[in-house]
Amino acid sequence: MHKIDLRSDTLTKPSEAMRKVMAHAEVGDDVYMEDPMVLQLEEKAAHILGKESALFVSSGTMGNLIAAYIHAPRGTEVMMHEKAHTYRTELSGISAVAGAKPLLVAGERGILRRSAMEKFISKRSIYYTERTSALFIENTHNFCGGTVWSALELAEAAEFATEYKLALHMDGARLFNASIASGLTAKEIVKDCDSATFCLSKGLGAPVGAILAGDRDFILEARRVRKMLGGGMRQIGMLAAAGIYALDNNIDRLQEDHDHVRILADACRENSMFHNIVEPETNILFVDTVRPAMQIIEKLAHHKVITMALDAHTVRFVTHLDVSSADIRRAAEVIRELK
Amino acid sequence: MHKIDLRSDTLTKPSEAMRKVMAHAEVGDDVYMEDPMVLQLEEKAAHILGKESALFVSSGTMGNLIAAYIHAPRGTEVMMHEKAHTYRTELSGISAVAGAKPLLVAGERGILRRSAMEKFISKRSIYYTERTSALFIENTHNFCGGTVWSALELAEAAEFATEYKLALHMDGARLFNASIASGLTAKEIVKDCDSATFCLSKGLGAPVGAILAGDRDFILEARRVRKMLGGGMRQIGMLAAAGIYALDNNIDRLQEDHDHVRILADACRENSMFHNIVEPETNILFVDTVRPAMQIIEKLAHHKVITMALDAHTVRFVTHLDVSSADIRRAAEVIRELK
Amino acid sequence: MHKIDLRSDTLTKPSEAMRKVMAHAEVGDDVYMEDPMVLQLEEKAAHILGKESALFVSSGTMGNLIAAYIHAPRGTEVMMHEKAHTYRTELSGISAVAGAKPLLVAGERGILRRSAMEKFISKRSIYYTERTSALFIENTHNFCGGTVWSALELAEAAEFATEYKLALHMDGARLFNASIASGLTAKEIVKDCDSATFCLSKGLGAPVGAILAGDRDFILEARRVRKMLGGGMRQIGMLAAAGIYALDNNIDRLQEDHDHVRILADACRENSMFHNIVEPETNILFVDTVRPAMQIIEKLAHHKVITMALDAHTVRFVTHLDVSSADIRRAAEVIRELK
Amino acid sequence: MHKIDLRSDTLTKPSEAMRKVMAHAEVGDDVYMEDPMVLQLEEKAAHILGKESALFVSSGTMGNLIAAYIHAPRGTEVMMHEKAHTYRTELSGISAVAGAKPLLVAGERGILRRSAMEKFISKRSIYYTERTSALFIENTHNFCGGTVWSALELAEAAEFATEYKLALHMDGARLFNASIASGLTAKEIVKDCDSATFCLSKGLGAPVGAILAGDRDFILEARRVRKMLGGGMRQIGMLAAAGIYALDNNIDRLQEDHDHVRILADACRENSMFHNIVEPETNILFVDTVRPAMQIIEKLAHHKVITMALDAHTVRFVTHLDVSSADIRRAAEVIRELK
Repeated sequence: MHKIDLRSDTLTKPSEAMRKVMAHAEVGDDVYMEDPMVLQLEEKAAHILGKESALFVSSGTMGNLIAAYIHAPRGTEVMMHEKAHTYRTELSGISAVAGAKPLLVAGERGILRRSAMEKFISKRSIYYTERTSALFIENTHNFCGGTVWSALELAEAAEFATEYKLALHMDGARLFNASIASGLTAKEIVKDCDSATFCLSKGLGAPVGAILAGDRDFILEARRVRKMLGGGMRQIGMLAAAGIYALDNNIDRLQEDHDHVRILADACRENSMFHNIVEPETNILFVDTVRPAMQIIEKLAHHKVITMALDAHTVRFVTHLDVSSADIRRAAEVIRELK
Repeated sequence: MHKIDLRSDTLTKPSEAMRKVMAHAEVGDDVYMEDPMVLQLEEKAAHILGKESALFVSSGTMGNLIAAYIHAPRGTEVMMHEKAHTYRTELSGISAVAGAKPLLVAGERGILRRSAMEKFISKRSIYYTERTSALFIENTHNFCGGTVWSALELAEAAEFATEYKLALHMDGARLFNASIASGLTAKEIVKDCDSATFCLSKGLGAPVGAILAGDRDFILEARRVRKMLGGGMRQIGMLAAAGIYALDNNIDRLQEDHDHVRILADACRENSMFHNIVEPETNILFVDTVRPAMQIIEKLAHHKVITMALDAHTVRFVTHLDVSSADIRRAAEVIRELK
Repeated sequence: MHKIDLRSDTLTKPSEAMRKVMAHAEVGDDVYMEDPMVLQLEEKAAHILGKESALFVSSGTMGNLIAAYIHAPRGTEVMMHEKAHTYRTELSGISAVAGAKPLLVAGERGILRRSAMEKFISKRSIYYTERTSALFIENTHNFCGGTVWSALELAEAAEFATEYKLALHMDGARLFNASIASGLTAKEIVKDCDSATFCLSKGLGAPVGAILAGDRDFILEARRVRKMLGGGMRQIGMLAAAGIYALDNNIDRLQEDHDHVRILADACRENSMFHNIVEPETNILFVDTVRPAMQIIEKLAHHKVITMALDAHTVRFVTHLDVSSADIRRAAEVIRELK
Repeated sequence: MHKIDLRSDTLTKPSEAMRKVMAHAEVGDDVYMEDPMVLQLEEKAAHILGKESALFVSSGTMGNLIAAYIHAPRGTEVMMHEKAHTYRTELSGISAVAGAKPLLVAGERGILRRSAMEKFISKRSIYYTERTSALFIENTHNFCGGTVWSALELAEAAEFATEYKLALHMDGARLFNASIASGLTAKEIVKDCDSATFCLSKGLGAPVGAILAGDRDFILEARRVRKMLGGGMRQIGMLAAAGIYALDNNIDRLQEDHDHVRILADACRENSMFHNIVEPETNILFVDTVRPAMQIIEKLAHHKVITMALDAHTVRFVTHLDVSSADIRRAAEVIRELK
């Protein structure tokens, strides 16, 4: 009986087909901008997002860090949700490297509403108060449970950013999950954003990397910051080829992951050890546990269902490319019968 | 009819007596540690706080910034209240200069309870998650309305800091107000803190400066950081003399400021334009207003009572050395009769 | 026999006349821009330098740090002389706080010539090389021996800065010494600079502070950065009054300090223990010593002539307001007869 | 006629044999430390360098940046050669990210001698002067022409570092070239270093990556900093497999590159358009040109020999895995006959 690993969608391994395109990818020195596959991936990604330019980066964390570095002058505030990934688990790079302070705002489902933002925004004044320079929004919103922004919510945030002259950045680590769930194209979702990232290594199933997109000048500068961070790599055409393959083949199937996670949610509802089971919007499910989460996780692991604790009494399930429908049926059964 | 300026206790001007000691103060080059008055003030302040060493700094903001710079290695988190002065109005220096990220915790009256801190603290893990390095507490807590920590609350925070190996720093901008209100000596209040600041320029009535205290090594390093920030000054004996005078003469009288602010609170209660009037604990009063705060402030100003808006519907009153009992009676009358 | 302290011109103590104006100075809260003497000093200083605006800062180090913070975006280079004060003894704030890298250039007498700068400047390229954003020049140049830039040398540096779009900042800690020695007004010296500092606490004899000047927007931003560094102070009208007094009374007399230092240089030439005695240009004299500098300093101190080592075999003499012509005659005699 | 690309040894493309091991490499999520090939590469690299632990990083720049970040507390100095790669072309990350200031020292062939270091090192003093925290040495030294440290020179630097309590880091981008040329093993070369990097993507011919090695605690912290910079990647087993292959197969052949470059040097000596031809020590050759370097480069390119300008009158030739002996013979002929 194999393990069903539901800890994260970052765990996917390249498929045979993906490995094949990687094996034969043409390469060059990307620091000199001579890697043809990277150039092709960047052009493709820019096109998909409707932006002038895009850059391959090692991780979503690097993409967000570069965006903060460029958008937020040192000593300014980046407004974000109080459970933003950038605030919670990017190792404080936003402060240590970008020199910016997270300005936190509460909001249901990770959505930042005007009324809440209005309350906290720092307005320029002659007494030299704080200054807010950028607004980071996250879609889907990981720590709020893979929640999705609607077109109206996006428009409200964009309007707010415009009004207060904030650079608007979207942490779209799971942007295509948001697209599938909302029915909006990726391009529609990020249309008002000055910059956006998405991960090739999560739901899309590529082994490594993320895309940062924006206008030409922004990406020129991003390329420079990437090099400063040590993120300039050489012959990465193979990684880029995997990214191209992922974009070509693995977007539409995300619906399957969303369907899978609902099956797990239903299973949880049938077991009184779990409660607070909000209907999942994409491929992430958070479930509160009566007993300590670590106990539940060990019990599940005993049945080869591998999960992760979000906190002392919350378990996280994430579905992805490497978890089949059969796996999900088995996992659901394990969940239902867990004692 | 003179103005009664209740915007802030930073507004006090040196009294004639204080000016006199300033005028005759012996001075030297403090960068070479040759200013006798500064050395005397630092020794006196260290003694009052029961710490090995103390340093004169230009402002409480500088004291807090130096503490963050030393206690919190770059890329770590400093836990603090979500309305902490260091988070709200120190111009993001904690991120831009100290490279640390504020880790925010909610708490009634600005008090950080174990249960709340426990929920947010980052614990070291092998997966390289965030790391919390320091705990900043503020006493009295400005933006929660000049609230005061009890001995029990202080002990709880100190115990938490010890358990998680957090450096404990107290932003004691109004430490002596806290002392007067709680009945604890300044030394008792900061006894478990690795470092503490207090301002000479607020309730104590000196024109400039604050004290940062801690152990010998901490202060040696603080002196270095102060110089890096450009805060090393030359013949500042006159400022130090004012500080010594303030410590000798202006602590006990803070009770008067506390009594005054209660008179203003009572007056507000008699006018239905004000609501949410919490009993003030020290010399700060926040009052919610039915109409926009700016309107109220203008009306008060028309009667020469000068106040400040905290936000769109909150007015702040602060009492201090330069506001007499007669002033307070007049201000109370203005408040009661305001239409 | 009193000590003749020739270690530094920072050591001057306020005269009786200066203390008198300080004692009676009107004050206000300068963080609210309500201190009348500070406003008057800043206006006066801006006028003297021919700049739109000026700001009182705690020290020249703070002025230079703020200039670097504003002119040099993080991750860019600030070109400066390899013996620049900002590189050598401002505690690396340019890197730690401003996030900029000093780009060092050699030059006789501290002067940066086009040919030398041309060799090191980083030019923008598509391969994302380093970027030079600012040029710092120092006049008089402390560690090159108080040397003075000529009008032609200044013009050459300014032209270079313009050509490469570098912000041009002058560290004019001893700007008025440069003015007296070169015959140029302070305004003429800084006319092509985007910003400039000068110290009130060195040759000018005020106890504390420096001026940072530039255009209106630069100074608005500088005021913000000053506050972030903790350099915003409250009722500093007394310090400002001393600065105004210094500007009114202590500039012309700097010629005397320059004359004095030449007397000391002549004395050194008559004693074979000293060598490499370059003709001093302003109030600073560096003399190489055959024996270890510390030995010479102790011998001089035995005769109450206090000096400082620049390095293992160099002694520094600095003349200033608190060293009279009689003092200089005595010091010269001690130097001549030292064995 | 194919191009002979002598611009840099970073340009090598993975061989068929290397691609084959990449194509079949087992992978896992390296952020969770579950990628078996990465773990194997890190163990192998640590063993080769005789260090407790090692970490795969995206680039040598990232390795050096992490080393500076950990070894050099903010606001301290990192001593290095005035032509160090870290100073010259790592985009000022040492200042912008690590907050450290390069402290530059001159030295023939990139070697830092005690006498030169002694002159510049900042010693701790009570007057809060600069503090030097780390010493970076580069072997081979790129911008000094691929020069190699002898065992004696290394010992002298190590002794100096120990005496002044400096962390000693080696930028060993081309460490194995140094090893081949000096006859010392890589382990012998770095034995006194607290940390060291080497590149997999230069002479060794892997497509991407570098190794950072040190003791266990250092690497634990480095893993954390890498994640903060966004350098934590997921299924990078394929890249690691290429690195393992490179270590197993491409070290000994570096001698060939060294032989090749000498052939080019000889050819240059036969053409009076080139001068100042120092005997190359490894795989890098700098040659001064009478006419502008760009002209020479264009002429060479006309004959399909691709090179790079180091500055206005210096051309750089670098030999590597993808340049055969036949290529070198042709390039030498082109050089000899160039007009």
